[in-house]
Amino acid sequence: MIQKVTLVGAGNLATQLGKALYKSGIDILQVYSRTKSSAELLAKQLGSQATNELHELNMQADLYIFALKDDALERILKQIDVRGKFIVHTAGSLPMRILQPYSDSYGVFYPLQTFSKQRDVAFEQIPMCLEAARPELLAELKKLAERLSGKVEEISSAQRQSLHLAAVFTNNFVNHFYHLSHQIVKKYGVDFELLKPLITETAAKVMEIDPFDAQTGPAKRFDEAIIQKHLNFLSDQPELQEIYSFVSKSIFEAHKSK
Amino acid sequence: MIQKVTLVGAGNLATQLGKALYKSGIDILQVYSRTKSSAELLAKQLGSQATNELHELNMQADLYIFALKDDALERILKQIDVRGKFIVHTAGSLPMRILQPYSDSYGVFYPLQTFSKQRDVAFEQIPMCLEAARPELLAELKKLAERLSGKVEEISSAQRQSLHLAAVFTNNFVNHFYHLSHQIVKKYGVDFELLKPLITETAAKVMEIDPFDAQTGPAKRFDEAIIQKHLNFLSDQPELQEIYSFVSKSIFEAHKSK
Repeated sequence: MIQKVTLVGAGNLATQLGKALYKSGIDILQVYSRTKSSAELLAKQLGSQATNELHELNMQADLYIFALKDDALERILKQIDVRGKFIVHTAGSLPMRILQPYSDSYGVFYPLQTFSKQRDVAFEQIPMCLEAARPELLAELKKLAERLSGKVEEISSAQRQSLHLAAVFTNNFVNHFYHLSHQIVKKYGVDFELLKPLITETAAKVMEIDPFDAQTGPAKRFDEAIIQKHLNFLSDQPELQEIYSFVSKSIFEAHKSK
Repeated sequence: MIQKVTLVGAGNLATQLGKALYKSGIDILQVYSRTKSSAELLAKQLGSQATNELHELNMQADLYIFALKDDALERILKQIDVRGKFIVHTAGSLPMRILQPYSDSYGVFYPLQTFSKQRDVAFEQIPMCLEAARPELLAELKKLAERLSGKVEEISSAQRQSLHLAAVFTNNFVNHFYHLSHQIVKKYGVDFELLKPLITETAAKVMEIDPFDAQTGPAKRFDEAIIQKHLNFLSDQPELQEIYSFVSKSIFEAHKSK
């Protein structure tokens, strides 16, 4: 059973995952970060030790969690010896097999959510997407994940990559549209607050209704008069005009044949 | 004081606004719709009369609410005589002055939200965006709006148009990205359910954090490796590739100088 963890990384995901594991009773032996102060800040919250020296890495853990930026993962793995250790990464966009050269026991422990260091999120709701090299390793990861969340799923590397890409649409792109909305109304002295009930309702609606069926608006019904009015309204912001046309076209194409 | 209302329209907005007014104690004298069955369906819920004949329109109201598609509004106004009557429209995209030829007493009563006939929303949270031809009319509309919502705002036609356009980004475009996410994961046999906590958290986050500051992801930091991986993943869906590149570029442009 996994009881002791060494956590490599101290970013947004490492911070929130570390805190959730700690709260569930897991012993975080050590937090590594290239930046000493980051490692210390997180270690303090996890009743753990901090290091920024890879040769000091605590090798007594049952599981080594690598919660790192994609390009840092292999760079760090090449500098340490984890043969025989159970290692996992937490990346949506990296296949599991990337770990194979470094140990026989490897897997993926991917919590599908957006994380900030400052903002705690309820892990019970977060889908824990797991993958492992062998069934007994998967069983171990499942037990660990079930301490954190009610939604534990076995997800292949290809499926995980589709989720990671979908998350870019659902989070990054959606959030950017919130930002663009903010810019649009700010210019007219309108408070972004006024848009918040709409943001909340738009998200709440697709909890119950398929987003395809929930779609409304001028693009879906190809209301050229309103579309043209919106484009005119954006005449001094050609980049916004372009995005508007582009996404409207995509909505229309998706709906025209249905 | 406005106590009696004639409601022209029986669509999504008319349905939800009518129900909220009725619940607040307003007397809905009549519901008009071109489609008799729609008028009857809504009138029944509002303890009201239904008609699909413009010459039968009940002219005893204190306020005439035109909750119609943009292109239907003037077509209908041309067929009736509302001189001396207090008329309002509920459209985000139409200026108030469009009503001026038809009566001296006119205004706008625009609830900023997405509505469906089936899904009731809490009006208390909905920004009621008001505009009127004269201060005393505005005061009347304010009193009426305050029966429904705690957020009553005086909003000019230009501001309202900016809100309507921002709402297209915040609702239509965001919802379309939920749909595209759904399509992306469906192809790999992954349940859209897994993305729902992320959708909820993404919306919840901007209640507290400015969306610009909340932005994360590969586009913001111009992580070419991940961006290229995502584009490769979409190689058989060129339309999605194009949207991905386009919105990523917009995110990068917004953040690169900050």
